This record gives sequence, C-alpha cells and structure tokens, in this order.
Amino acid sequence: MSDLKPYLKELVSDIDARLDVFLPAEGTAPETIHKAMRYSIFAGGKRLRPVLTLAAAEAIGANREVALPCACAVEAMHTYSLIHDDLPAMDDDDLRRGRPTNHKVFGDAIAILAGDALLNESFLMLSHVEATSRYTGIDFIKELATAGNSIHLIGGQVMDIEAEGKTISREALARIHDTKTAALLTSSIRLGAMAADASPIQLSCLSRFGRATGHAFQVIDDILDVTADTETLGKTAGKDLVAEKSTYPSLLGLDGAKKEAQRLTQEALQALDELDGDATRLRQIADYLLKREY
Amino acid sequence: MSDLKPYLKELVSDIDARLDVFLPAEGTAPETIHKAMRYSIFAGGKRLRPVLTLAAAEAIGANREVALPCACAVEAMHTYSLIHDDLPAMDDDDLRRGRPTNHKVFGDAIAILAGDALLNESFLMLSHVEATSRYTGIDFIKELATAGNSIHLIGGQVMDIEAEGKTISREALARIHDTKTAALLTSSIRLGAMAADASPIQLSCLSRFGRATGHAFQVIDDILDVTADTETLGKTAGKDLVAEKSTYPSLLGLDGAKKEAQRLTQEALQALDELDGDATRLRQIADYLLKREY
Repeated sequence: MSDLKPYLKELVSDIDARLDVFLPAEGTAPETIHKAMRYSIFAGGKRLRPVLTLAAAEAIGANREVALPCACAVEAMHTYSLIHDDLPAMDDDDLRRGRPTNHKVFGDAIAILAGDALLNESFLMLSHVEATSRYTGIDFIKELATAGNSIHLIGGQVMDIEAEGKTISREALARIHDTKTAALLTSSIRLGAMAADASPIQLSCLSRFGRATGHAFQVIDDILDVTADTETLGKTAGKDLVAEKSTYPSLLGLDGAKKEAQRLTQEALQALDELDGDATRLRQIADYLLKREY
Repeated sequence: MSDLKPYLKELVSDIDARLDVFLPAEGTAPETIHKAMRYSIFAGGKRLRPVLTLAAAEAIGANREVALPCACAVEAMHTYSLIHDDLPAMDDDDLRRGRPTNHKVFGDAIAILAGDALLNESFLMLSHVEATSRYTGIDFIKELATAGNSIHLIGGQVMDIEAEGKTISREALARIHDTKTAALLTSSIRLGAMAADASPIQLSCLSRFGRATGHAFQVIDDILDVTADTETLGKTAGKDLVAEKSTYPSLLGLDGAKKEAQRLTQEALQALDELDGDATRLRQIADYLLKREY
C-alpha cells in the first residue's frame, strides 16, 4: 500500500470539490451569510471526519463517490460546532484553523447564523445520499441527527462548559470526550460504511474502531494543547489551562496521557482485525493520528 | 362545520403530547440543555405552523396522526429560530410568548446550544414520518431543510438585520417576509399535505395558499407591533419602530397595511377554491389569522 499523504490529499480534494458544489455560491443573496459559511468551511481544516467517511466506504469495498454526501454532511456539522463553540458567549476564541474565527471577521450575529446554516445544510447535503439495500435515506438522517443532538455533540459542549474551573473525575472526562468528539467521529465512519451497504457485523467493528479513535484523537488534542504552540496548531494553544479545564494531561500527567492515547489507538486497531474488508487505510489513518503534531 | 376554537385546541393538544414524547425528558443529562429546550418549546406559543401542517393533512383526507412528526419538526425549527433571533447579538429581546427569553433565563451559551439542539432535533423528529406512495422520507427532509436554509429562513433573518435603520423598498420588504416567514409556513403546509400523499396539483394549490397566508401573517404581525400592547402580544410591542425597521405600516400606512393583509388573505382563499379536498378548516384558520389580536 502506498504512502498515506497523497491518498489523504486526493480525498480532501474530492471532499472540497463536492462541498463547493453543495454550498450556495458566494455571490448568492444574501451575500454576507454565504461568504461567512464558506470562510469557515474552506479554512483548510484537516478534514479528518470526512476522510474517515470515505476511507470507511472504501474499506467495505465501495467506490468512495457514494459516500461523498455523507462526508460533506459531517464536515458541515463539525464546522458549525466550531463556529458556535468559538463565540464570545462560549469558548471566546480568536483563532481557528490558523485564521481569525468567524465572529471576529463577520460579527457575532452572522457567525451564529452561519453556524445555524451549516447545521441545516448538513442535512440537505446528506439528503443526496443513495439508499442501499440495507439502509434507507432516513437511516442516514437518523444517524447524523443522533450524533449531533443534545445528548451527544451539543450535550458534550454543555458538559465541557459546565466543567470549566472544576476538577472532574476521569470517568466524567471520558463522558465529555465520548459525546463531544467520539460520537460524531464514530458516525462519520458509520455513515461511510452505510453508504457502502456494510453488514451489521462490519458496522459494529467500525463503530468500535470509531469510538476508540475518537477518544484517542481527543486525548492527543489535549496533549497538543499543552505541548504545541499556537502557530503549529492553528488555534490558541494552552487554552485548557487558562479555562481551568480537566484534561488527560492534567489528570494523568503528560506521560500517562500519551500512554492512554497509545492504548486507545491499539484498541482501535484491534477492532479492525475483525473487519471483513480492507482496513489498510484506516490503520494508516489511526497511526497517523497518534503521531500527529497539530 | 363546528367552531374553530375547540378544533385548534384539539390539534395543539395532539402536537404538545407528541413534542413531549419526541424531546429528551427534562431529567436527561446534561439537564440544563433539556430544561432550556423544553422551556422555549412549551412556552405556550400559538402553534400556528404545526396546526397548519395537521389541517393540511386533513384537507387531503388523511388522519392527522400521519402528519404529527412533520408538525413537531416545523415547530422545533420555528422555536430554534426565535431563541437565536432573540439573542443579544441579534434582536436582543427580553420577552417572548409572555415569558423571559431563553437567554435571559439560561444565559447566552445555553440559549445558543438549545437553539442548535432544537434545529438538529427537528430533523430527528421528521425522520419518524412514514414514506407515502409519492414521497420518500428524504423528500420530507429536503422540504424542511430547504425552507430553513441560508436562502430562506436564515437568509431572511440576515436581510432583516441588514435592513435595520434603512428605508427599504416594498419589494425588498416582501422578499424578507417571503424568506423569513412565508417559506417555513408554506413548507409546514406542504409537509402535512405530503404526509397525506397529496397529488402534485393539490400540493401546488396548498403552496399558493401557504405563501399568501405567510405574507398575510407577517403583515398582520407588523400591524400588531404598532397597535397592540406588550402584554397582549407576549413579546415586546413597538420594537420595529425602535429598531427603525421598514414594515408594511411604515411603508403603506396602517390602513394601507390592513388592506394588504385583506388582499393577501383573499388570495390565500382563492388558492383553496381550486383544491380537490375539504378546505373548510384551512379557510377558517386564514380568516382567524386576519382577525387575530396577538
């Protein structure tokens, strides 16, 4: 199997091209909102979630084309959550993906509305998916809307805000990571697999892979917040400490957190051992995530 | 045909009961967000949009039960848009449906997230609709997601914000009303009709009815902002004047605006003349909207 980097580049290029088609053109009235939506979507993010969507579809043996509506939908949902999380009323952050945050450029009102519009758009994008022999179009909608709801993605942000300034238990922290990060990441993979008409057993293996990868990703994110600088990250470094957030490094120490990330990555790779499919790319991605520097 | 009031009461009771089932229970963790979502959903709104959804399904000859997921979905979308519109960064309003606005009670962060959660939830609710012989589940999702997008519902709010402090043309005002109010109201009716498996001709009649009713509703809203008091309205009266917004009364005078509301209601009723179905309740509702005092 060839290098991962050119493969990722190819996938990101496919995703960006389809996002460009799905989103209303920049000149569409009212112009401000469409500029704001595109500003955050095309800010050069890693596209981790949609890449996993496409790689999951390929692992099941499908052409990745069939999973593109799912890939775009999860990226739109992820981007809306970043725009809203960065607002002054929430994490109050000025920098995201190496650029000023949406509200810094367009103001709070438009940033709120651009987030709303991307959340709404994620379901419009997803409605372009083709039903398969096992999954109806509505199954895809339920999957994404459950990952994004007040118990998962939004609930995680609520718990994250409520935990600021407190020391919480490792279990409580795992619960935040599970809802805020792992739920959407797992669904990104499941949606790709569903578009490829995965069997229930394949879907179950990939769900376990997704859950463990999502947790590993967030532990590494917490580590990088301590060890990397703002320029490398493209977002403000050290902000967990400022917000007095409990993180894996603060609870387990830096070494303990690194070991936990390795353990979770191992768990993710073990789930793939049982996958009836070609998991090479997914393995490479999990490995790459463990070693990433931003 | 009997009185409208007991009929409306019956419909609202059905809608509220189903909303209660669809929304996570108030004790669900994290509790704050579920309290906030329920606070705004069960604030005693008129339920105009979901009532129209159910009445449209009945006009086509279906049991209104089939349209309940659609009815709940449009009410959730409408409520999210009110929570976000009331935020300090937007219209900065303290009173809604006779009670303090969501952010006044729960703070800006939770109000933003509660709005997000209700928008997300609207698609989860809608995913419970049964496909019909003419419409797939995805057709319903596309309908709602289009009404709610950056060109319609959200686009209308953007234009509304951008028009503050300016005198705009009657055409520009009609465009704001069309996107901000009439689009979701029309879709509320269309979704009900679709759940009843309406024919393309029936759907087209009801779309014209919805569009005209939506415009009439907004003209009357503008009139009441001038003529009614805050207590009767349950939201701050006179705020268009304070925000220096162009409205039908400010462009056409109070009498001119009233005539326009009558003309639009007439247009709505005429669309029903061509409906193959029982439009009695829809006629009564259009008439009631013209005469409403809050």
